[in-house]
Amino acid sequence: MPRYKLTLEYDGSGLVGWQRQANGLSVQEILETAVERLSGKKLVVHGAGRTDAGVHALAQAAHVDLPKEWPLDVIRNALNQHVKPHRVAVLRVEHAADNFDARRSACGRVYRYRILNRRAPAAVERGHVWHVGPLLDVEAMREGAKLLLGKHDFSSFRDSLCQARSPVKTLDVLDVVQAGDEIHVEARARSFLHHQVRNMVGSLKLVGAGKWRAEHIAEALAAKDRRAGGPTAPAEGLYLVEVIYPE
Amino acid sequence: MPRYKLTLEYDGSGLVGWQRQANGLSVQEILETAVERLSGKKLVVHGAGRTDAGVHALAQAAHVDLPKEWPLDVIRNALNQHVKPHRVAVLRVEHAADNFDARRSACGRVYRYRILNRRAPAAVERGHVWHVGPLLDVEAMREGAKLLLGKHDFSSFRDSLCQARSPVKTLDVLDVVQAGDEIHVEARARSFLHHQVRNMVGSLKLVGAGKWRAEHIAEALAAKDRRAGGPTAPAEGLYLVEVIYPE
Repeated sequence: MPRYKLTLEYDGSGLVGWQRQANGLSVQEILETAVERLSGKKLVVHGAGRTDAGVHALAQAAHVDLPKEWPLDVIRNALNQHVKPHRVAVLRVEHAADNFDARRSACGRVYRYRILNRRAPAAVERGHVWHVGPLLDVEAMREGAKLLLGKHDFSSFRDSLCQARSPVKTLDVLDVVQAGDEIHVEARARSFLHHQVRNMVGSLKLVGAGKWRAEHIAEALAAKDRRAGGPTAPAEGLYLVEVIYPE
Repeated sequence: MPRYKLTLEYDGSGLVGWQRQANGLSVQEILETAVERLSGKKLVVHGAGRTDAGVHALAQAAHVDLPKEWPLDVIRNALNQHVKPHRVAVLRVEHAADNFDARRSACGRVYRYRILNRRAPAAVERGHVWHVGPLLDVEAMREGAKLLLGKHDFSSFRDSLCQARSPVKTLDVLDVVQAGDEIHVEARARSFLHHQVRNMVGSLKLVGAGKWRAEHIAEALAAKDRRAGGPTAPAEGLYLVEVIYPE
């Protein structure tokens, strides 16, 4: 069974997230159905990360073992045909080593969170950004973000349903960037806790709105208690941008 | 009746275009309904340009005469409330002179056409780009675009339904820009013929695909015959980006 790595883009609107679930349609189910139409077999598509309901991906990674060899562009084109009409696209298909595991082999994940920061609500980008009307102080958000960098117990930014064994994670990047009338929060770590990015963004938004001083981020972190962290930013602004593997 | 200038963003998907029509919902009707809810009166909202069915706008301009003065942000917020749930947003409301006319006062219009140029279809940007699978030669498209600049009879790129008195227009800008896996065609002129941008893009795509030599664009232009021009690119990739007024 040759193993293939897939790079995937999807719009998470209306989906229950990456992982197959009984209560609605998932990206995994859409892809596994497409793989079955191609190969005639029920196979598991293993993703690098479980994006939540409504979260988008510009480059999710996954692997799948197919019953035989096909040319890479034949697999890509066939899967793109079979995922229709869903908003899922297979960007690339590559040969992968037998011991490649989309989740376990990954050494980094990059997420982007898009805040549309203007008085008027989103029209063209509706469903693709979090609309925040009052103008946010980007410099203050940047100060707050710096306080989260490095290795910490992120319990204050961890969803109560999180299944990770340890709340300790190392945050390598947390940049706050003004991009026209949008503010982008770019986060990179080996891995994240459940809702960690959205909870950090929800807290930075309070800093940007002047409701928290920037230093309050450090106090929230030190509390190691979810009740000390800010609210969870909505799913629709979050994008899994890249999954990084060792060369 | 004080006159106001409106700057508007909208997603044209599922709408019949700017202009009020019997056969479906238009941006104009959505706005006029919102204005009626605000003012209690049936008033006409005059747009700077009639975008076609499915075409988007990042900054369409319009004017409307309201029965009384309101603070500008009250008008903006009320209209944004009343246009719900449609994908239309009032970005700005400004005072306008009594002789300001959104269409007649405009001295320039800027359009952007977005081609998503990669093998995989659009997922996140579906409905917001024209997906073209085979890789296009951007340099050749740029050469072809140069041949359209300046004052010409654009009959070969004019829809048969076009109501303009003359087919002669002056094209000030026609840039072809690579932007990641997208190709953007940026066009600026005082005004355009019906479907002119989409017909020019449809022709440039043939050049990019190697089906036309770049010089064929000049031959098509010289023919002054719609049958000599290329096909009309789909509406979903087109954005009205700016309407320019003299200072």
